[in-house]
Amino acid sequence: MKKPYLFAPGPTPIPTNTLLEIAKPIDYHRTVESAELIRSASKKLQHVFQTQNEVLMLTCSGTGALEAAVASLFSTGDRVIVIRSGKFGERWGEICTAYGIDLEPIDLEWGHSIDPQQVADRLKQYPDCKAILSTLCETSTGALHDIQSLGQVLKGSETLLVVDAVSALAADNLEMDNWRVDVVVSASHKGLMSPPGLGLVSYSENAWRASEKSNLPKYYFDLRKARKTSREGSTPYTPAITFIIALNQALDQICQEQIQNVLHRHARLANATRNGVKAIGFNLFARSPANTLTSIQLPAEIDGKAFVQMMRNRYSITYAGGQAHLSGKIIRIAHLGWVTEHDVIVAISALERGLAEVGYPVPPGAAVAAAQETFVSKPDIPNIK
Amino acid sequence: MKKPYLFAPGPTPIPTNTLLEIAKPIDYHRTVESAELIRSASKKLQHVFQTQNEVLMLTCSGTGALEAAVASLFSTGDRVIVIRSGKFGERWGEICTAYGIDLEPIDLEWGHSIDPQQVADRLKQYPDCKAILSTLCETSTGALHDIQSLGQVLKGSETLLVVDAVSALAADNLEMDNWRVDVVVSASHKGLMSPPGLGLVSYSENAWRASEKSNLPKYYFDLRKARKTSREGSTPYTPAITFIIALNQALDQICQEQIQNVLHRHARLANATRNGVKAIGFNLFARSPANTLTSIQLPAEIDGKAFVQMMRNRYSITYAGGQAHLSGKIIRIAHLGWVTEHDVIVAISALERGLAEVGYPVPPGAAVAAAQETFVSKPDIPNIK
Repeated sequence: MKKPYLFAPGPTPIPTNTLLEIAKPIDYHRTVESAELIRSASKKLQHVFQTQNEVLMLTCSGTGALEAAVASLFSTGDRVIVIRSGKFGERWGEICTAYGIDLEPIDLEWGHSIDPQQVADRLKQYPDCKAILSTLCETSTGALHDIQSLGQVLKGSETLLVVDAVSALAADNLEMDNWRVDVVVSASHKGLMSPPGLGLVSYSENAWRASEKSNLPKYYFDLRKARKTSREGSTPYTPAITFIIALNQALDQICQEQIQNVLHRHARLANATRNGVKAIGFNLFARSPANTLTSIQLPAEIDGKAFVQMMRNRYSITYAGGQAHLSGKIIRIAHLGWVTEHDVIVAISALERGLAEVGYPVPPGAAVAAAQETFVSKPDIPNIK
Repeated sequence: MKKPYLFAPGPTPIPTNTLLEIAKPIDYHRTVESAELIRSASKKLQHVFQTQNEVLMLTCSGTGALEAAVASLFSTGDRVIVIRSGKFGERWGEICTAYGIDLEPIDLEWGHSIDPQQVADRLKQYPDCKAILSTLCETSTGALHDIQSLGQVLKGSETLLVVDAVSALAADNLEMDNWRVDVVVSASHKGLMSPPGLGLVSYSENAWRASEKSNLPKYYFDLRKARKTSREGSTPYTPAITFIIALNQALDQICQEQIQNVLHRHARLANATRNGVKAIGFNLFARSPANTLTSIQLPAEIDGKAFVQMMRNRYSITYAGGQAHLSGKIIRIAHLGWVTEHDVIVAISALERGLAEVGYPVPPGAAVAAAQETFVSKPDIPNIK
């Protein structure tokens, strides 16, 4: 019998109730009911983004939302600092380059996180920089960037802080308003437990001001149009209404748990996963690991690509492998979205099984015990009598 | 009891089996199974597009796919002829203008269709025109443009023929290869009976050659990248895998019926609808009506906006109203996608009911009888004994 478990960093498991919502007959999108739906989902997104700014829903994947954020914000020849420490930092740079934006990259070794002082120094060198672009969690390495400190570096400056929180939203804390973040980009299919196909963008008032001057060519990704229609509970073009329904339903669950509790849960899941991995002598790939996913450095004798494939074929367990030059060298286990402590126990115990399978046995239960110990030592589940 | 009927020109009704497919647990998109799925759906799309060219699936709505078609094809300062006879012809123009493309519009009265001689004349005036951009069915008016004749006008020329078939694909005939069409754009949520969220683009070899020189800024909508990954059964960015599953399932139904029969069915449905409408003394808004939808010119004493709202509230029937300056003046009834003769009878009989409701009574059954007569006079359903 096959019973699949999905531990990839997106798409993530979708709650069954959410799946059933999207199986309902479709309706026209220019109706009073759809307007209410769009307004309701937008409002709940503000809770998750921890912002008073509007959150816009675009029909595209996360990358489309990254591009919308750039194309609506900048003008030809603007200079920006991009933090590149993995595939998605690089993507920020590629998008800017495609639009003729002048790039000042800060390149870090993959797996490392930004030292805010580096940004302060670079800003001193180029005080005219229009923005700093960073990821929250660099999904390709599992490393977390300290966005709060970057916000402090930028305090009093006009430079905008632009954050790709595609994978990390609702898993790693991001207080858009409190931390002085100007642009947050995310997507439906990670922490928000919905299918891939909706990109999400929120702009601060400073970002909207910059967007008024933006001269980059855009049409579908023009956020000013999206903002205008959003206020009417609408979208400039036919939206993926199915996914807005899904997202709205998933957001109900998140809002009921409350974002602070959702973040706390992810911290516990990540902590247990890390302790499990370390207990069997493996190293984490990221220096400052995110709560979104755990990247594991594999010993040289294990072929990570074959390992991931074997886990899927033999155990119905989907981990993600490494990307680009990390292919075969790391595996990535996401504990993201609709995931509980029991799921993490499965992810960790399956890892033990798989290692034995490829001739790299670890003491049975060693990783599980360490994860379990983490959960038990500070129980989070209320003791209801 | 409410039992809704959807006659809007997108989203259109989704087959129940397709809805159930999308309610299945989600899977990772970088797998052998997903690659097979993407290749399978692409192949079936070629049957519907009537082409040997690749058909690419993008995660966006139809407008995103229109923009991808433009941004990947042209270069700054290119001159194009755009046929504008409604909202979607105008959209072609707006997208080109956003990218600094030099526009030569041919403006027609809304509801009219292009006379191919007009295009020939304009081409003589501007022989350097890179492309002609047209809609197949102008969804805002219900008018059909004669793409086959436009292809003949362009025979032997290097000018590309670019067609927005977002609403009309699989309802009005479009033989991409036979008719010398270079670019066809469509979407998942009209004739293809799936949810909105997938844009579709197919380029001829001539279009791909032009794309190699294109210098317009693009990233998410770079079709060259999409083409490369498509051959590997993949996409450059996380796709709306849920909708590819839906589309693949809906395409199975279309391929089983065969595109020629699907088109024939739409022709019958449209014909019956037109005959029903005319039988009660109403005029069609389009001079050359498409088989995609029927636009009905309302008498001045009927407020079309209120009528559409009343039909939805009181009869659970969703027609579409007019757009832009046609708001309140026409109604649009789509007979598009997962629609049978029985559905058309419902659409027509409900129209009679609604007209009586707003104090514009017609002889009960008059429109229905005319529609029924159309179906009965040339029965299409095989007489199986």
